Amino acid sequence: MKVETLRWFNNRLEMIDQRILPAAFEYLSYYSAASVAEGIRSMVVRGAPAIGVAAAYGVALEALRLQDKSADEFNAGMETGFTVLAASRPTAVNLFWALQRMRKAWEGMATQAPQQIAQSLLAEAHEVLAEDIRINKVMGGYGAALLKDGARVLTHCNAGALATAGWGTALGVFRSAVEAGKKISVIADETRPFLQGARLTAWEMVQENIPVTLITDNMAGYMMSQGEVDAVVVGTDRVAANGDVANKIGTYMVAVLAKRHNIPFYVACPLSTIDLTISSGKDIPIEERSVDEVKGFRDTHWAAEGVKIRNPSFDVTPAELVTGLITEKGVVLQPDVEKLRKLFA
Amino acid sequence: MKVETLRWFNNRLEMIDQRILPAAFEYLSYYSAASVAEGIRSMVVRGAPAIGVAAAYGVALEALRLQDKSADEFNAGMETGFTVLAASRPTAVNLFWALQRMRKAWEGMATQAPQQIAQSLLAEAHEVLAEDIRINKVMGGYGAALLKDGARVLTHCNAGALATAGWGTALGVFRSAVEAGKKISVIADETRPFLQGARLTAWEMVQENIPVTLITDNMAGYMMSQGEVDAVVVGTDRVAANGDVANKIGTYMVAVLAKRHNIPFYVACPLSTIDLTISSGKDIPIEERSVDEVKGFRDTHWAAEGVKIRNPSFDVTPAELVTGLITEKGVVLQPDVEKLRKLFA
Repeated sequence: MKVETLRWFNNRLEMIDQRILPAAFEYLSYYSAASVAEGIRSMVVRGAPAIGVAAAYGVALEALRLQDKSADEFNAGMETGFTVLAASRPTAVNLFWALQRMRKAWEGMATQAPQQIAQSLLAEAHEVLAEDIRINKVMGGYGAALLKDGARVLTHCNAGALATAGWGTALGVFRSAVEAGKKISVIADETRPFLQGARLTAWEMVQENIPVTLITDNMAGYMMSQGEVDAVVVGTDRVAANGDVANKIGTYMVAVLAKRHNIPFYVACPLSTIDLTISSGKDIPIEERSVDEVKGFRDTHWAAEGVKIRNPSFDVTPAELVTGLITEKGVVLQPDVEKLRKLFA
Repeated sequence: MKVETLRWFNNRLEMIDQRILPAAFEYLSYYSAASVAEGIRSMVVRGAPAIGVAAAYGVALEALRLQDKSADEFNAGMETGFTVLAASRPTAVNLFWALQRMRKAWEGMATQAPQQIAQSLLAEAHEVLAEDIRINKVMGGYGAALLKDGARVLTHCNAGALATAGWGTALGVFRSAVEAGKKISVIADETRPFLQGARLTAWEMVQENIPVTLITDNMAGYMMSQGEVDAVVVGTDRVAANGDVANKIGTYMVAVLAKRHNIPFYVACPLSTIDLTISSGKDIPIEERSVDEVKGFRDTHWAAEGVKIRNPSFDVTPAELVTGLITEKGVVLQPDVEKLRKLFA
């Protein structure tokens, strides 16, 4: 089954509801910037590249919704749409990258009629989606070359087709490796509290018949100490100019353990995820989400009443722990300021 | 509320059903070695010291159950009882320590009538329980001295009153620190898959009004990197002769992170948990439990269908990562073969 995380259908955006996977597989429909923003906030869609694509469609949907208004009303409404989308989640830079790209496209056609603008912004959103898949496949090729035949690769969270427009960043590397004839197997951390590993990564790999073993987050060290992990590949929500990597909470822990066990730690990372305006990981905003997520899962609560709860959703892995960034321009080994600057030159 | 994990009541053993805490608080009753073994296996009772106490009562209950049989039948039945109890869980050495102690007591009275033996074994089980609490309080005093006023202390799993006859090993250190007037606060890892941290440690600390913050297992590194952890104190299921520590899965990960952040890592460990017959952690048997535990929690399943699952229940932290073992004979800093041998001299 080909996973279409987001799709344009009957003049609306449809997104797989990732909150209910794998128990149920269902598309939800979106008609406005505000509804897409809510879909991002509530994690119907998640994963940095997918959030970027959703935001691009959010802008296009808003333009379509407002296309019969006067130019002034259209412009004011669009500004509100951009603001609402930008406020949906703070950590993934792809959100801001996509909004900037859509704004630039809009500015390039400012003198046109709203209907024309709306059609052009929709075409731009389609291109953002198509480009994401193309880039993932290029990255996948570079990443696959890093994995030896038979490699047992650990991943954290879900940087798969469900985190992108399709194919995936980290899981895209696994798909490309399999396509290239390599027999690899995947170890998936369950990734509390939202359980992206247990629900989404495991589901994606099962769909593709790629062997996958689920562990709880606290088992990664044990697996490494037993010699059962040959490499780690994860995705990222934002990479700072010095190569520090923000990704799902727990990624830092995996990186520290990988270092101790001399296991290579790779980050699959399209250029749209690299934020040269931020000098180091210390300056990446870390979202703290609702404590309800940690109390249990969905309606099942197990935490003792009266306990305080923390829920940072991301952490920062310093560049020194990163063996390589896998980008669509090749692999950047031991990333640093110089190497990242060159990448954009 | 004083937590009585195990209690002798109306000529039977009662144990708090820790599988349903904190949603419900309920005692289950036990009348035989086989039923106690099943209670240990299914984790009605868990925690190395509590398992030891339960096993001691299991032997006594079996003697009471068989006391009207002939000496031959009594002896044969008792042997079966010992065997069944020894097979309940493999990692915690306190189980074997308690069985050995009960066997020694039994052998010392082999010529007596079964009724007399049963009464004496019951008295011995009562003493195992009382001694456990006494030892925890002594350890608590030594451990409390290691924590500075205001310390924020991370713990993994539950090494509390619920893991012992009362007071606790790691949580006993926290209780003793508070009793000594120190203002400490606790950070509890939720401890998948059985959630001893979220359910049991959080519950115990809330009962005692000790400030406690719950995090998922993958947040420990983030908290340390933010400077929010001053010390780690955990319990253990078995310490090898060289100081390697087996404890709940994920303990090793916490120890590696603590080392990276120069945070002291203490293990609260009664002498009954040290196994001089095992030279290093490599030889400690690691229990793999049912994969159902990892699929979800109780009846709520979230793992994708078709995924393989691993469920090692413990891991080994090498002695080099242990700042100190807190025992009832004092704190053993940087434990090694020599220091542990001296402890028993």
